[in-house]
Amino acid sequence: MDTYEKLKSIFGGRVTKASSDLCCYSADGSQIRGRPDFVALPKSTEEVSQVLAFANANKIPVTTRGAGTGLAGGSVPLAGGIVLDMTQMNRILEIDLDNIQVVVEPGVVQDKLNEKLKPYGFFFPPNPGSSATCTVGGQIANNASGMRCVKYGTTKNYVLDLEVVLADGTVINTGSKCLKSSAGYDLSRLFVGSEGTLGVITKAILKIAPLPKSRKLIMVSFKTPELAGQSVSRIFAAGVTPSACEILDKTSIQVLTKLDPNVVLPKDGDVILFEVDGSKNAVDESADMLAAACKDIASSVLVTGDPVKMKEIWDARSLLGAAVSKMDPTKTRIYVGEDLGVPIKKLPEMLAKVYEIADDVGLLPMIYGHIGDGTIHVGQFIDVLDEKEWEKLNEAADRLHLAAIELGGTVSSEHGIGAARGMYLEKQCGPAFNVMKDIKKSLDPNGILNPGKLGM
Amino acid sequence: MDTYEKLKSIFGGRVTKASSDLCCYSADGSQIRGRPDFVALPKSTEEVSQVLAFANANKIPVTTRGAGTGLAGGSVPLAGGIVLDMTQMNRILEIDLDNIQVVVEPGVVQDKLNEKLKPYGFFFPPNPGSSATCTVGGQIANNASGMRCVKYGTTKNYVLDLEVVLADGTVINTGSKCLKSSAGYDLSRLFVGSEGTLGVITKAILKIAPLPKSRKLIMVSFKTPELAGQSVSRIFAAGVTPSACEILDKTSIQVLTKLDPNVVLPKDGDVILFEVDGSKNAVDESADMLAAACKDIASSVLVTGDPVKMKEIWDARSLLGAAVSKMDPTKTRIYVGEDLGVPIKKLPEMLAKVYEIADDVGLLPMIYGHIGDGTIHVGQFIDVLDEKEWEKLNEAADRLHLAAIELGGTVSSEHGIGAARGMYLEKQCGPAFNVMKDIKKSLDPNGILNPGKLGM
Repeated sequence: MDTYEKLKSIFGGRVTKASSDLCCYSADGSQIRGRPDFVALPKSTEEVSQVLAFANANKIPVTTRGAGTGLAGGSVPLAGGIVLDMTQMNRILEIDLDNIQVVVEPGVVQDKLNEKLKPYGFFFPPNPGSSATCTVGGQIANNASGMRCVKYGTTKNYVLDLEVVLADGTVINTGSKCLKSSAGYDLSRLFVGSEGTLGVITKAILKIAPLPKSRKLIMVSFKTPELAGQSVSRIFAAGVTPSACEILDKTSIQVLTKLDPNVVLPKDGDVILFEVDGSKNAVDESADMLAAACKDIASSVLVTGDPVKMKEIWDARSLLGAAVSKMDPTKTRIYVGEDLGVPIKKLPEMLAKVYEIADDVGLLPMIYGHIGDGTIHVGQFIDVLDEKEWEKLNEAADRLHLAAIELGGTVSSEHGIGAARGMYLEKQCGPAFNVMKDIKKSLDPNGILNPGKLGM
Repeated sequence: MDTYEKLKSIFGGRVTKASSDLCCYSADGSQIRGRPDFVALPKSTEEVSQVLAFANANKIPVTTRGAGTGLAGGSVPLAGGIVLDMTQMNRILEIDLDNIQVVVEPGVVQDKLNEKLKPYGFFFPPNPGSSATCTVGGQIANNASGMRCVKYGTTKNYVLDLEVVLADGTVINTGSKCLKSSAGYDLSRLFVGSEGTLGVITKAILKIAPLPKSRKLIMVSFKTPELAGQSVSRIFAAGVTPSACEILDKTSIQVLTKLDPNVVLPKDGDVILFEVDGSKNAVDESADMLAAACKDIASSVLVTGDPVKMKEIWDARSLLGAAVSKMDPTKTRIYVGEDLGVPIKKLPEMLAKVYEIADDVGLLPMIYGHIGDGTIHVGQFIDVLDEKEWEKLNEAADRLHLAAIELGGTVSSEHGIGAARGMYLEKQCGPAFNVMKDIKKSLDPNGILNPGKLGM
């Protein structure tokens, strides 16, 4: 049976090889491109198992895709073959409050899950910027996280069990509904962040957390990025764990101010937006402790619990990307070298390095990120029709990645390796990269699962 | 060169094959026994690398040992060969407060590490009952935890990087000083809990946490274990995360009361000791919220922040093991079936099952454990000279393990699989067990690392 016939026999009408469809599945949020030969939309674990058994026997590449919001080409089918679009497996199978967990299919959208949980007073904490559209399966495959992970941790901290279809069609469960277990190798953690290279996730049991009852925002400005960096160690040492800890550098503030001179952000330096959440008294106490810990080294400190004021400030922060595009409509943001991570102590050095490299190549960088866990997002904007600017951009990205590795950091803090950063993984991981390759080979001997990713 | 000569060439005087020495390395805290041929005490990663390269080339079993406090035979050399006693690699290499982490060798004793951290206001949270003697390396190898993991998580949540020597002597690093990363497979998590079957840990970078400034204890009694179980879901739903959540069943209370009629525990049912910690106001608020959440279903509620009173209560709790031995000096506690874990919702069912099985076989069980994460420690006491009692014990343990699996639970919540529970791993994990075996084979093709463990 030829591949298309076989796919139709498994998926019925939920398979396509029409050019117009394939086109939609040839990209994600990055600049990586690759065209599949077929796209299928599974509705059950059994269908996924059947298609993998067939693909494995016939050595056909299979690339799994959620919402396609990734920023490293993780879901782009570099070697053609079959794309499995998981968005039709999008049921919330169980909201199990007694066990403080949910059972979901991988195609559930993060924000939809949280809408369903809200009336019960719970939420699923890991919140990438794309939470309005990204699927939980994609989050798991990338170990995604976001602003709140400084307190709440990344996706891996919430995965109790995955149902995974292996390359040959075997279905396994990596964990259980138990909140903890010391029974053999932690396969859940192995599959989290494996970017579809070891198996296809078809179900997940996820821990959830009670919604905080109260929130405060503490906006602090600093004369230098070094002082901003120091403040983070200080507040941790004071015993405060903020629920967010976002840095906006001078350039970012200038860009926002140009767009709106009345923007509600201090204009006297680098700014950190801290948020604390929890029960009411605890939040008041943490906000005071946090403000006190920063006071000596800050230029200004504002503490607010006013929801309107807080929304205004967070809105200003989230306008950043849009602001730059508006300033210069010929420039587009390209996601390369955008997801650096370093040990917290190295943040000032990394920040200095970003400015130095950008200056060298002649691009203006914008820096923001989750300073509480060492994540630096670098925004770079070019005229995409200008080949010289592409060259500059790629040179800057290359140097940024190498600088992060040099400082003991990571080329991806939360967006994943995909195809965009595969060439740096061996440099970052050293001989541990060979262990990763051995594991890949042992679980996917024919190399059908998302080939060309993670530098493999 | 023969093995002993080779070991002397690597370790100098730090190697032995004297019977009296080998005897000391033939047991841990369980009833598992196995005698090594040689014991070596490495002082460096280089030495570990050399001995593994030699052992691998000559197919000699290597079993790594910390303090030998394990309860499942994990460090007992079932197949002879070489035991690596890691207790001489016990340096704290760096206390890095800016990055909120420490760099340690595996032989550091948990409590010693915490003594060193205390003056800085930090601690390493995972606290197994053996913290006074157990090594951090052993903790990592078992993914150990204890009373406080309901709030603070298990060892795996604190491991940022491991230096590991692989079977062939290759040295890898599994992570970095970064607080987060999405760059390839999470090898740190793979090695945590792998019980010395995939490599030898020679260094670790561990996250630490600020010491809580305040603490309160809330002692609540319930008419039935069902109500005790319900209280846990209620307090989580109320948004309170206790730092401890320990259950003592009626039998345990009776045993303690017989020993000391004035024991400071309620005598009217099953008791849960909740603890909350953090900053002062937050602790007061959490204690009140917790007490309020339990009130409707509790027989009695006591809230105290008095350090003397709290110590009295925790001391009573920790006397449990000793109390039984004192009641009947002919009985010894044997650790089998002692580390069950189930989804929280299944706790009442599991508790009922424990009483049913114990009744069937004619043994008196004592139940305690970390009810907040579903861990049930079953204490069973027998006359070790009575073969019939051994039979009863083993029957009870077997049925307990199967009952936990039946309820979607785990045969080890925090003590590890070792040799004592290997036969249940396949039943618990299903086809995922084959993935574990594949990974083992790929990382240790000659099977030299801790053979006979994890059911492999």
